[in-house]
Amino acid sequence: MKTGPGLLFVVSGPSGAGKDTLVDALRARTTRLRYSVSATTRSPRPGEIEGEHYFFLTPEEFERRRDAGDFLEWRVYNGNLYGTPRDYVEWTLADGYDIIMKPEVNGALAIQAAYPAAVLIFLVPDRFSYLRDRLLARRTETNEEIAHRLEVAHEEMKAIRNFDYIIINEQHRSEEAVEDLEAVLHAERFRIHRYEDDLLRDVEHT
Amino acid sequence: MKTGPGLLFVVSGPSGAGKDTLVDALRARTTRLRYSVSATTRSPRPGEIEGEHYFFLTPEEFERRRDAGDFLEWRVYNGNLYGTPRDYVEWTLADGYDIIMKPEVNGALAIQAAYPAAVLIFLVPDRFSYLRDRLLARRTETNEEIAHRLEVAHEEMKAIRNFDYIIINEQHRSEEAVEDLEAVLHAERFRIHRYEDDLLRDVEHT
Repeated sequence: MKTGPGLLFVVSGPSGAGKDTLVDALRARTTRLRYSVSATTRSPRPGEIEGEHYFFLTPEEFERRRDAGDFLEWRVYNGNLYGTPRDYVEWTLADGYDIIMKPEVNGALAIQAAYPAAVLIFLVPDRFSYLRDRLLARRTETNEEIAHRLEVAHEEMKAIRNFDYIIINEQHRSEEAVEDLEAVLHAERFRIHRYEDDLLRDVEHT
Repeated sequence: MKTGPGLLFVVSGPSGAGKDTLVDALRARTTRLRYSVSATTRSPRPGEIEGEHYFFLTPEEFERRRDAGDFLEWRVYNGNLYGTPRDYVEWTLADGYDIIMKPEVNGALAIQAAYPAAVLIFLVPDRFSYLRDRLLARRTETNEEIAHRLEVAHEEMKAIRNFDYIIINEQHRSEEAVEDLEAVLHAERFRIHRYEDDLLRDVEHT
């Protein structure tokens, strides 16, 4: 994949860890951050808007685009297909904008494989019981679906060591978690390996 | 060296890059950060206070303490001895406080060798000419001393790749540089390798 001066931030974690709320709050605070919308074959949940939360595709359309190489990465999750549209990411980074996306954990790992410069942030709920409470409060899924999601969440936690950062999204302090995430986005810009070799040579020979 | 839950931040860069002003501004904004005062055999500059800017020691006293193992690291710079008192750093980190220090570049590298978990931040002035202007404005040194300092600064720039972050301290935007530094201190807390292995295992088996 082509790289650009923008940075790619991937916020993930078990379903119910609160990444939607966190990323929405962050996007409300900053202007130079672009949001990458994923494509999926799953059904929209109530309130989800085409092109804002997801691009909702039929399995046939998804497969056609996948086979044409239109996805940076794609994966199966809970029996549905998910993919990251390639063009948007490449052009936005090349234009110097940062991108944030919030895929499932397997998607985050696939993006890291396709684009190793991506910064992976794992969002953890403060207590696992809280995760269950949130899923129950959502009330858009059956008990069987929730039990399955919790099982998946246990599995997803095992990927944590592949991430770059962990942010704990504690109940009653989500404002702090937004600030934590904002600091990570801010600080990553200054990491030495973000600097091109020719810039470092310039500095050395100032 | 013993490690602790606090983080050790080392701000360095060529003389005249503005690290004193930057670190002072940062310390005014935060309370959980402790400042590590170095020991030196050089003469105090006007306005420098014993125990606040440096511990000023005679060469004999410095050598006695050095030989007793009282310094985490020590080095010669511009013909003077500099050292980092060991006890203060070890106990403060163990107590869970972060420490910031602002040694010369060689001192920063020595601290990294003694304590690899240290976070090294290289402060660069926006233009090298500006560095010279600042040194001239300081007017506490002879022209020969300034010429020598500039030579040393050229040498110091070569160490930049050993650092973790680069922050550019541009003229007329020093407030931004303070925020950049604050974001680095904030974000480093969430880096995955800061988490103890047993904590990660707990999370995996939640």
